[in-house]
Amino acid sequence: MDEPLLRRENLLAAIKAIPSFDEAAAARARLHSDRLTKPPGSLGKLEEMAAQLAGMTGELWPDLSRRAVVVMAGDHGVCEEGISAFPQGVTLQMVLNFLNGGAAVNVLARAAGAEVVCVDVGVASPLAHAGLVSRKAVWGTANMTKGPAMSLAETLSALLTGVETAHELANKGVALFATGEMGIGNTTASAAIVSALTGLSPEDTVGRGTGISDEGLLRKRTVVEKALEVNSPDRNDPLDVLSKVGGAEIAGLTGVIIGAASRRCPIVIDGYISTAAALVAARLAPACMPYMIGSHVSQEHGHPALLRELGLSPLLTLDMRLGEGTGAVLCFHLLDAALALMGQMATFDSAGVSGGKE
Amino acid sequence: MDEPLLRRENLLAAIKAIPSFDEAAAARARLHSDRLTKPPGSLGKLEEMAAQLAGMTGELWPDLSRRAVVVMAGDHGVCEEGISAFPQGVTLQMVLNFLNGGAAVNVLARAAGAEVVCVDVGVASPLAHAGLVSRKAVWGTANMTKGPAMSLAETLSALLTGVETAHELANKGVALFATGEMGIGNTTASAAIVSALTGLSPEDTVGRGTGISDEGLLRKRTVVEKALEVNSPDRNDPLDVLSKVGGAEIAGLTGVIIGAASRRCPIVIDGYISTAAALVAARLAPACMPYMIGSHVSQEHGHPALLRELGLSPLLTLDMRLGEGTGAVLCFHLLDAALALMGQMATFDSAGVSGGKE
Repeated sequence: MDEPLLRRENLLAAIKAIPSFDEAAAARARLHSDRLTKPPGSLGKLEEMAAQLAGMTGELWPDLSRRAVVVMAGDHGVCEEGISAFPQGVTLQMVLNFLNGGAAVNVLARAAGAEVVCVDVGVASPLAHAGLVSRKAVWGTANMTKGPAMSLAETLSALLTGVETAHELANKGVALFATGEMGIGNTTASAAIVSALTGLSPEDTVGRGTGISDEGLLRKRTVVEKALEVNSPDRNDPLDVLSKVGGAEIAGLTGVIIGAASRRCPIVIDGYISTAAALVAARLAPACMPYMIGSHVSQEHGHPALLRELGLSPLLTLDMRLGEGTGAVLCFHLLDAALALMGQMATFDSAGVSGGKE
Repeated sequence: MDEPLLRRENLLAAIKAIPSFDEAAAARARLHSDRLTKPPGSLGKLEEMAAQLAGMTGELWPDLSRRAVVVMAGDHGVCEEGISAFPQGVTLQMVLNFLNGGAAVNVLARAAGAEVVCVDVGVASPLAHAGLVSRKAVWGTANMTKGPAMSLAETLSALLTGVETAHELANKGVALFATGEMGIGNTTASAAIVSALTGLSPEDTVGRGTGISDEGLLRKRTVVEKALEVNSPDRNDPLDVLSKVGGAEIAGLTGVIIGAASRRCPIVIDGYISTAAALVAARLAPACMPYMIGSHVSQEHGHPALLRELGLSPLLTLDMRLGEGTGAVLCFHLLDAALALMGQMATFDSAGVSGGKE
């Protein structure tokens, strides 16, 4: 079997391994929740989340203490078109910042008891660091306005890196994941993916990323239109879309989502780029959808529509637009709260509190 | 001086003591934030919150480690009208649940490193417990459909209990507050307060509380209309509104907000009832407004409009409708995150990361 075919087989195996959501466990969690000293449903999404976590893991009180945010990094050839407020070299600089513990995601991960796992899946420059997972599938993507961003083989390699990273972490005991990414230019690739897979116009999917001007926004839209025109990705083939107008770190995150789901691990989806990866994952492997938890609505223009498309109902509205996994990691506190409520609250019986009437 | 007059003097003194927001400190925080390794503003409300906290406290890195949620409890005579899904006795039962550590707010406070301070400012039954602050201003309010819920003296007493509770806690080192409450029937009183002070119709201010039926909702609206008609509270006199259609725990929270602000302590406002207390505080003492932090949008029908009225922009959207301070305490994690980012992130200079262009 040649390598791309073998990789496709491995990917299909990971997808096949995703267990179905445990409705019975979720129902048991809801029953327990209704016995706690509060009006039924009054803890809103926290209660629902506790039930979701039970359905994902099969346990009412899953131990999610070991947790990681996987930050996939890659560069984008489309940066040549001037679609970002930051130069491409910032991808590399920020990866070093992650490895040195100085970025926003490091601070938030520390506060939430999570490790930051940084994976070079496609940075354009040489990069070595003891703390880095070095798995380049590509040395930066090609400029998608001139042809495909990646070959299918590169795309599958990045995807499988994600699956394997999730599996390796799960083997070490990690039970809760968050997605993160770094890649100057990756809101452009994400917009192209979302337009290709949903049919939404670039007007609805292209936003300001980390902060471009009005003029830059128009240019970015034109660039996405051109990339879609030049590559004609097949909207019914997520791998074709991912390789032609995607990015290595987006493919990597798609793999992390599939890999986490195949081990029954909840995975919290960060902002626009992560949600684009979640869309690809959902199209490739619908069985992974119940394992996804929406974290926040970012300020990126197309994010709300993309979340709706996936049926994700985010918990935070903080007007963030940073990526890195920052919004997802913040949500760990809310998951902890949901589980603590389930485990520690008194019941109506034990506390001698009268229940409500209909 | 007679007692009510003395109390009014004490209240005015607390209001006068509220320092103005330190714009220079907030500006210094924003300057620092713009030097951190992220696009300016990309941490959204977390950045804004760090600036707000600096403006409130006068310090860029305030120590907010000592924190408390003040849960004010009181009963409502209007329960006679059948406006709640729960019997009035649940107020007492839930206060005991708070004191025994089994309620949702206890669990969430523990997770956020906060103490729960429970104050009986108006429960209708005798209540004694070592952990309770016993300061009954009233033994349950009167039925506001038949006359004023409280006298002015009772209202001032409850208000001052709140001010004094905040001052006592601040004296012990508490630097961050959250509001919480327990009082079967208190969404009805809150709706009446909000309608009286804003002119919004009961259709816009009355909601389902902890979960009443369609029929109950209509009855609740009629009850609020009747209370407003019978009492004709003066919308330009917040104390008149608070006493005629309010509640002791709502008055207590109004006092806590004023008391915390007078000590430059940030105070996180919980759901609908707490936000109604914040509205009264804002009308009595506009200087306390910059010290308020909106926590969550609850499912209570009138909450979004009330938050807009106060200019509060909440951080969480969790479809909660429990009260107790649960949403406010959850926000402590986000405040901690905002301050950790300010204090621990690398700067562009220190990390060797290139800045963005306009």
